[in-house]
Amino acid sequence: MTDPTQDLLPEGLEDRLPQSAAAATRIERAMLRVMGAHGYDRVRPPLVEFEQSMARRMNGLMTRNMFRFVDPRSLRTLALRADMTVQVGRIAATGLAEAPRPLRLCYAGQVARITGTTLEPRRENLQIGAELIGRDTVAAAAEVVELAIAALEAAGAKGISVDFTLPDLVDTLADGPLPLYPEARVRVRRELDTKDAGGLIEAGGEAYLPLIHATGAFPEAAEKLAALDSTGVLGTRIDGLRQIARRVEGRARLTLDPSERHGFEYQSWFGFTLYAEGVRGELGRGGTYCIGGSDEPATGFSLYPEELVEAVKADEKLGARLFLPMDHDRDAAQKLREDGWRTVAALDAGDDAATLGCSHILEDGAARPL
Amino acid sequence: MTDPTQDLLPEGLEDRLPQSAAAATRIERAMLRVMGAHGYDRVRPPLVEFEQSMARRMNGLMTRNMFRFVDPRSLRTLALRADMTVQVGRIAATGLAEAPRPLRLCYAGQVARITGTTLEPRRENLQIGAELIGRDTVAAAAEVVELAIAALEAAGAKGISVDFTLPDLVDTLADGPLPLYPEARVRVRRELDTKDAGGLIEAGGEAYLPLIHATGAFPEAAEKLAALDSTGVLGTRIDGLRQIARRVEGRARLTLDPSERHGFEYQSWFGFTLYAEGVRGELGRGGTYCIGGSDEPATGFSLYPEELVEAVKADEKLGARLFLPMDHDRDAAQKLREDGWRTVAALDAGDDAATLGCSHILEDGAARPL
Repeated sequence: MTDPTQDLLPEGLEDRLPQSAAAATRIERAMLRVMGAHGYDRVRPPLVEFEQSMARRMNGLMTRNMFRFVDPRSLRTLALRADMTVQVGRIAATGLAEAPRPLRLCYAGQVARITGTTLEPRRENLQIGAELIGRDTVAAAAEVVELAIAALEAAGAKGISVDFTLPDLVDTLADGPLPLYPEARVRVRRELDTKDAGGLIEAGGEAYLPLIHATGAFPEAAEKLAALDSTGVLGTRIDGLRQIARRVEGRARLTLDPSERHGFEYQSWFGFTLYAEGVRGELGRGGTYCIGGSDEPATGFSLYPEELVEAVKADEKLGARLFLPMDHDRDAAQKLREDGWRTVAALDAGDDAATLGCSHILEDGAARPL
Repeated sequence: MTDPTQDLLPEGLEDRLPQSAAAATRIERAMLRVMGAHGYDRVRPPLVEFEQSMARRMNGLMTRNMFRFVDPRSLRTLALRADMTVQVGRIAATGLAEAPRPLRLCYAGQVARITGTTLEPRRENLQIGAELIGRDTVAAAAEVVELAIAALEAAGAKGISVDFTLPDLVDTLADGPLPLYPEARVRVRRELDTKDAGGLIEAGGEAYLPLIHATGAFPEAAEKLAALDSTGVLGTRIDGLRQIARRVEGRARLTLDPSERHGFEYQSWFGFTLYAEGVRGELGRGGTYCIGGSDEPATGFSLYPEELVEAVKADEKLGARLFLPMDHDRDAAQKLREDGWRTVAALDAGDDAATLGCSHILEDGAARPL
């Protein structure tokens, strides 16, 4: 008698069985195809790197959440990748340092972390994304937002929403018309992020209160934000958001939450979060940033399509199966495979077409319904 | 001044840059497509599992070569997968225990190990394979060998060779006409594997000497082996090899090395190794076996196409690039992408078509050569 628990997977890790694996594969390919068509070349970094090298490029974010272990070969600490963006940044700064800019790269692969969150208990995720390296302009941001929407559309997501944010909003205002003591900035950012009016006042951020209400459907929220910007210090940012919005209007519902900060710790002037109808939680996020360790500007996004897979997997089609009886016509079978049939060959006389999930059988060189 | 070595990757790990990544992706998809067309459903197991669960299914093989680390959540030891076959075996024995047999599954993913070998210093590999679960008959073996060849053909491999072996040859003979003491079996197996005639005699395996010469091109080597088999104890095996050979003749060069054992420690009666012209080392191997921990018979193969990628990557085409000037016709660009063009959009007036690797430019709604 073996212990049945020994076959369990660790919490937060799971197998994708055929329906779910087919959905994940289809979604991954559809997204990569769209990114490739927009000139983004795929790179494939390794699963494991030196922890120090990854940590340095992550600006301290998440590094404690990486699986780490000593490499018996180098006697240095390695880490299992928790984010492929930093790996792509490293590639841009090393192997592709001499490639012309802007450099368009994309990637897809599994990432893992020690702890999930309450909302997202998975400890392994499929991460798919694109990075436009060398630019963090409005034009770059517009291309990247449009590409993220196109990738989600190609994957079959419906009712896409994009929530814009201005990650450096508090810093911009505090350096200009609404000064704050350095130590107050951190608290004001946090209280604005959670929309806590009382906490904001307590933190000395009373002047920032109106920002709490400059949120919601895009054009209106941008109006409100512009109305608050008496000195015009946010002018180029708001104008940038409007240009990005014009580029994708009609393809996604657009909202603005200018003071959202959580999850945008390393973005510069622009950030966005992606959602789709019927899909739990966010599907991804992106924005403008500087590549850790090299300070090159960049714009990009990462998609985590796990919940999209969950939403569609029950309806995922694996393709019609054609049963090939013993001693069937092999050339006919090959031809039908080339036409898109999935064949299931009998290995002995006991193999049964219906039991093996076949809807058709090869007879006289053609597929006949069972 | 930063330390340039901090961007190095650990020994045996590497980035795939665009040409190489495109070749790996094309090869991976081509192989998965062929396996899918033959009725093999893809599964996607996690990167990480409990070490104990993986080790139990690996029959002690390679377990010391897995990257291992303590999971701060469960306080148990996890391992980064070094082989996906054992994961697929676990899936067959757990999540798909009730699925009808034979069960056809396939997979593709990255695997990692602590130490490479002199011949294969990589510590991370792309592993792609198929498992036919519930059967280890000649018919199963023939399907699997044919499928492995078809997968390699689809990936663009030329001059494919298949080397057959009989992993339990020494046990079969020792249990029958050529008895050996249990402790002599291990030595005889090893000396036969290395074709060391002197060592074989020393190990008490003089009677096994003729096997050293029953190797080479398939039909002749099978003849020699049959001639040595005076009692007929190998009759069904040799007949099985001949049936498999008939199934794939003309599509691959076939050889027999009946006493090759290294790397076939967990195979039962049949094993095979795959090679292709112009590709260094072996491309993969397979055979019949029992799933570790559940003892269900199975037949399968694993391909490691890294060296095939190396052989073709310089010639890999990334697709013609079409430059989209500022304020281009977006609908025309979308149409051209749908026709297979890869577009590269100007983000500012300084972006140059030739510098960005474009061969064409969008003009008056059409692609014009630069």
